[in-house]
Amino acid sequence: MGSLIDDETLLARAYLSRVAEPTSIPVWDWVRSVGPVAAAEAIRSGQVSADVAAATDARRRAADPEADLEAARRHDIRLLVPESPDWPHFALAALERTGRARAATFLAGQRRIADSGEPMPPLALWVRGPGDTSTLGIRSVAIVGARAATAYGEHVTAELAYGVAGQGVSVVSGGAYGIDAAAHRCALAAGGQTVIVSAGGLDRPYPTGNSSIFDRAGESGLVISESPPGSAPQRHRFLTRNRLIAAFSAGTLVVEAARRSGAANTAAHAVTQGRPLMAVPGPVTSPMSAGCHDLLRRPANPAVLVTSVEDVLAVVGAMGEGIDEPERDAPGDLRAELDRLDPIARRVFEGLPVRTAARPEAIAVRSGVSTVEVIRALPVLDLAGLVEVNDGGYRIAARLRKRTPAAPLPSVAP
Amino acid sequence: MGSLIDDETLLARAYLSRVAEPTSIPVWDWVRSVGPVAAAEAIRSGQVSADVAAATDARRRAADPEADLEAARRHDIRLLVPESPDWPHFALAALERTGRARAATFLAGQRRIADSGEPMPPLALWVRGPGDTSTLGIRSVAIVGARAATAYGEHVTAELAYGVAGQGVSVVSGGAYGIDAAAHRCALAAGGQTVIVSAGGLDRPYPTGNSSIFDRAGESGLVISESPPGSAPQRHRFLTRNRLIAAFSAGTLVVEAARRSGAANTAAHAVTQGRPLMAVPGPVTSPMSAGCHDLLRRPANPAVLVTSVEDVLAVVGAMGEGIDEPERDAPGDLRAELDRLDPIARRVFEGLPVRTAARPEAIAVRSGVSTVEVIRALPVLDLAGLVEVNDGGYRIAARLRKRTPAAPLPSVAP
Repeated sequence: MGSLIDDETLLARAYLSRVAEPTSIPVWDWVRSVGPVAAAEAIRSGQVSADVAAATDARRRAADPEADLEAARRHDIRLLVPESPDWPHFALAALERTGRARAATFLAGQRRIADSGEPMPPLALWVRGPGDTSTLGIRSVAIVGARAATAYGEHVTAELAYGVAGQGVSVVSGGAYGIDAAAHRCALAAGGQTVIVSAGGLDRPYPTGNSSIFDRAGESGLVISESPPGSAPQRHRFLTRNRLIAAFSAGTLVVEAARRSGAANTAAHAVTQGRPLMAVPGPVTSPMSAGCHDLLRRPANPAVLVTSVEDVLAVVGAMGEGIDEPERDAPGDLRAELDRLDPIARRVFEGLPVRTAARPEAIAVRSGVSTVEVIRALPVLDLAGLVEVNDGGYRIAARLRKRTPAAPLPSVAP
Repeated sequence: MGSLIDDETLLARAYLSRVAEPTSIPVWDWVRSVGPVAAAEAIRSGQVSADVAAATDARRRAADPEADLEAARRHDIRLLVPESPDWPHFALAALERTGRARAATFLAGQRRIADSGEPMPPLALWVRGPGDTSTLGIRSVAIVGARAATAYGEHVTAELAYGVAGQGVSVVSGGAYGIDAAAHRCALAAGGQTVIVSAGGLDRPYPTGNSSIFDRAGESGLVISESPPGSAPQRHRFLTRNRLIAAFSAGTLVVEAARRSGAANTAAHAVTQGRPLMAVPGPVTSPMSAGCHDLLRRPANPAVLVTSVEDVLAVVGAMGEGIDEPERDAPGDLRAELDRLDPIARRVFEGLPVRTAARPEAIAVRSGVSTVEVIRALPVLDLAGLVEVNDGGYRIAARLRKRTPAAPLPSVAP
């Protein structure tokens, strides 16, 4: 909860969330370098690099984080920051990784402009609803597609969203008309959880015709935005928002999409983040299925063809599948690396499969720690280069895998 | 033409075609061992193995090949035999290969019963129509699917068959109601060529409701059956017939198919014969598309998803694509093998690509011989183990490929 975080950090993150547009590479890197409080202070006083200044000058004086936090409270919106134990570290691990890589490229001068839609982590998240944010991206599926959906698309969305939500898989989408609305509505109808990732401030549901869906999602699930209250849902914010729809899901399912579409953009983010991508086929005579067919025949990482609830669950709902036995030994270097980890992270490391990537629930079973502890430890192991992500699952990093016969890992547990 | 073949061989093949059901392993192997004339004589007199006798006893005395040939002539049907220069050696090369393998397994006692539908070559073919039989399987596509097709399936079939036929690709199918009929009809409407592979005798078009399609295909294209005139289209003959639909096409396209269906059977034959398989997606709510979706997500050799004429042409209409430069040398053994080939076959061998399989047209360009000569030489090279088939294309056999740098092949041209 926000209340566990000191007010200085909250105010600083609220300020940063207001002054910078999402996915600014220089701002994110600057905050990472000096911390949110010092970064906010420097931005307010104009003592920053030209790149950071360019991204923040427009609003750096007028921003009023106290007023934003007060407006949020009035609308039952809380500010979630990376310093909170409820931050979705697991869901955002891939963006942390790509974000660091983009920042390195940018600082090396190989990338001049920080495009809208870069795969950067958010600086903060504005959240409404009782859902658990720390486990975002575990048993969940993004169901996305065209606003101008056909009756076929809405029908299939309803079947799939209702079916997976009834199996305890939460349904993530963007709150738009068409496929998005059908997905949220049917997840709610099944008594399941749904997550809306909004492009504008949460006090301004967009489109307003879907405000009752926003209300109901906020009562039982989650409504999330990177932008503070009062922010307009500008066009570029939809594109940056799509990376969070992909991040907050164990897999992304495109039901209907035209050839160039927002759903195709979300699909690309899922692939970039190493998450499984699924698509529903449809009539070849329907332009609203053309985008899905393109995804199904991508030369690399083609989407998985799904036609039923069971197909979707097989991709995002698996638990404890695909585990193999460890086949590694611990050279001196590795032992030193492991010694630097806390005891929980070491146990999680020992529970990692060698070949076939496993989901956090399965690693929890093998490690004997809770799923939430696994989810918190995985980003630590990732930063230490001990784990690799593969299709939404985790396994021991390639550099630690051996082709030699199995040798038990010397005990490093506490 | 049949007239180039001596009457004794023609009569023997006509007799064999009448006494044995298609795909009998022992009969095919017996004919291969002793030749058609001796085989027919032995069967008629009952001087054969128990397996051959079991497959031929029912009709061996009553068969009257002279009467069959006379009935055929009355219906403008000719008998095509493997000894003829017009025999579709190219199209049947894969069945020759699998047939030999099945015969070896059978004779070794590892297979008790010769199932209907074994991938054996035909003993003879009854043919009507002006089409060129020797080039069957080159620029052609099988378009197959459900008899109980939906309006969607018939519409897509019409678009694709009309489009590819207009590009000079012949359309092969089974003459049934539904997808088959739409495919033949629209190929004819485009002024293109169509090939019906029938399960019964050609004097008895089946279903009779499609007899005008049989008539028109026989006027401009080809109508082909393994069974002599008068044969009823029995159920097992549909399954054995399907292997010929796959064989006579450069690729097989399934437009609509239920989960277990004749079209899925044809698709399996295409894969067994190393031919590309394509499928059209459709609504996941339509049972008539369920078989297509299954083909699109086969774990091994999934069908290529096609949505347009261009997609189909990219699979079956390519010419001269994927050619790489030779990277081989000729050890003494190979030189001796090549010396046994006729000059045309040697030039075709020299035109084979090393890595990426090529179609006969492309090999013709490289070899400087005609496509028909390539098509006649390929089975010879195949029997000599000098060539391998891969996805409907040909390349030099694996045992002759080297990973060493390119070394020019010593001239073996005449």
